[in-house]
Amino acid sequence: MRTAATSPDPGSTDGELADGQVTTGQEFVRDTDYIDNRITRGGGGPAGETFPVEAGRYRLIVARACPWANRAIIVRRLLGLEGALSMGLCGPTHDSDSWTFDLDPGGVDPVLKIPRLKDAYLTRYRGYPRGITVPAIVDIPTGAVITNDFGPMTLDFSTEWIDFHRDGAPDLYPGHLRAEIDEINDVIFTDVNNGVYRCGFAGDQKSYDDAFDRLFTRLDALSDRLGRQRYLVGDTITEADVRLFTTLVRFDAVYHGHFKCNRSTLTDMPVLWAYARDLFQTPGFGDTVDFTQIKQHYYIVHRDINPSRIVPRGPDLSGWRIAHHREQLGGRPFGEGTPPAPPLDTERVPAGQGA
Amino acid sequence: MRTAATSPDPGSTDGELADGQVTTGQEFVRDTDYIDNRITRGGGGPAGETFPVEAGRYRLIVARACPWANRAIIVRRLLGLEGALSMGLCGPTHDSDSWTFDLDPGGVDPVLKIPRLKDAYLTRYRGYPRGITVPAIVDIPTGAVITNDFGPMTLDFSTEWIDFHRDGAPDLYPGHLRAEIDEINDVIFTDVNNGVYRCGFAGDQKSYDDAFDRLFTRLDALSDRLGRQRYLVGDTITEADVRLFTTLVRFDAVYHGHFKCNRSTLTDMPVLWAYARDLFQTPGFGDTVDFTQIKQHYYIVHRDINPSRIVPRGPDLSGWRIAHHREQLGGRPFGEGTPPAPPLDTERVPAGQGA
Repeated sequence: MRTAATSPDPGSTDGELADGQVTTGQEFVRDTDYIDNRITRGGGGPAGETFPVEAGRYRLIVARACPWANRAIIVRRLLGLEGALSMGLCGPTHDSDSWTFDLDPGGVDPVLKIPRLKDAYLTRYRGYPRGITVPAIVDIPTGAVITNDFGPMTLDFSTEWIDFHRDGAPDLYPGHLRAEIDEINDVIFTDVNNGVYRCGFAGDQKSYDDAFDRLFTRLDALSDRLGRQRYLVGDTITEADVRLFTTLVRFDAVYHGHFKCNRSTLTDMPVLWAYARDLFQTPGFGDTVDFTQIKQHYYIVHRDINPSRIVPRGPDLSGWRIAHHREQLGGRPFGEGTPPAPPLDTERVPAGQGA
Repeated sequence: MRTAATSPDPGSTDGELADGQVTTGQEFVRDTDYIDNRITRGGGGPAGETFPVEAGRYRLIVARACPWANRAIIVRRLLGLEGALSMGLCGPTHDSDSWTFDLDPGGVDPVLKIPRLKDAYLTRYRGYPRGITVPAIVDIPTGAVITNDFGPMTLDFSTEWIDFHRDGAPDLYPGHLRAEIDEINDVIFTDVNNGVYRCGFAGDQKSYDDAFDRLFTRLDALSDRLGRQRYLVGDTITEADVRLFTTLVRFDAVYHGHFKCNRSTLTDMPVLWAYARDLFQTPGFGDTVDFTQIKQHYYIVHRDINPSRIVPRGPDLSGWRIAHHREQLGGRPFGEGTPPAPPLDTERVPAGQGA
């Protein structure tokens, strides 16, 4: 789907909205064919593939439940892009058709004036055949999705939106560390971020067993690494930490039981648990997490693995605020920068839904 | 179903084999209408309701997966009834028809010569309409089920089979403590033993929420009690400990994830975890537990809550052998008695399936 403004290949998926499903006898393979236009400084590029960074032109559409969207929420906060790039929030549950703006008054996004995110995909491509996913960036004047390619999206926030970063914004993707960040991001994506989905949506025992082994082998290796250093790469928070965090913060709430990632809870992996708490307690991380929406999303939407759609009351979340003592490893969360200000009033996680 | 040799009331259940299922919009209510003849010293009683205790006449049919059957396996071992009451083992999984003897050569119980436990129920009552449950005691000469009423069954092992107890058998149901044991058994049954099923098979959110709150409120109260004393009643192991143990030992393996009992893992409840380990490490308890069969049973049989039938690889079981330090609370596991001998060679849990 590399050519803008033409219809994408309708071949490989069935057009249903699914962030995953069980196909009996098959391993889970994520459809990674996204609308991948980029928003760059100055825009341009061959065949109009890139759009120019402009304050107020685009709207980031997310759902707090979704780990891929959570990345974008965190990076936008850390960099202070709220004023340049507004954000619309879909509700935690959706039908097979689309994520929807059911949290907004009247069930309509107040800027895009649409009830379903799908409408912005259809504006881009009539008959869009793939999953209606978050995060997505919509061009407000045309109402069309520019990109839902979550991988480059947050890197572009760091490197292309730089003119709109707040004072004191951290460098989450520093030039001299990019190779190392890219490398660890790749294995974290395969074994951890998507690894939990490969456990949960495995269609046969062997696929599950393999994904489970890869997941915990990788978590053990990450635990070794993080036993020696406060952050994954260098001595400050980077994009790699954001990406690992969004899976760890969901681990006990949904992946452990719902996705059968149950060798250990996060709370039983001491290094990773302290690392996750450290980030959670850092402004810009924990204040983006809505555990209520996370649990509602996974347990209600995935009928094929939870037919009763009952949402568990656990786990106990009180531990997230316990001291982590990771300062002892040194490191400076924001490097030469500073923590972000508190969330905008309109973007706060509702009381009682965080930890 | 109080009259032997006549057909039971066929009214209330559908005749399907289910140790539970989700009925949308309804709380889970266990069918507790069992074949409740008893085996007593001398037998007799009105209308031939009781059968006489005799060595070699009866066969106890169990499945290691089932917590209700696990009680009977443990009590039989603690009391040393192996020589008087033989035991047949059904496999961990079954279809909607019956528990089966698929672990035995040829798929037939070597004593009863039947492939399905249902056959012994049908010998008792043609067209038996209720669940084919374990534990069940079968009269070997007639091949008919005498009782599947698991509550009185283990109490009768203690009080009626006394002539066949081993030397050094503990008194699991001492006369002066029966009122207290009965009282705690009642609340443990409702809130814990059956409480986990009420969570797992809840057909609506409110039924689940209520069962969850009752379960963890009760576990917290039991934890308080067991923080002060080594065993539930008195200073030795009693029937009450057997009944709590069979739920606790399954907690992290199946109830936490599969039944959504996920406020805390057992390993996160320090007193109950130490108490469970203490019992697990006591001869007659842990040596009856087959975690592989437990997980296979719950995850494969309950298709309505695990349609993929994939069996989780977790949890890590290595903690069951860690020191519990409960000796510091005093108490004598077997009172004036002694621990049982190791299991019969034919009744050992296969290597790699315990902990």
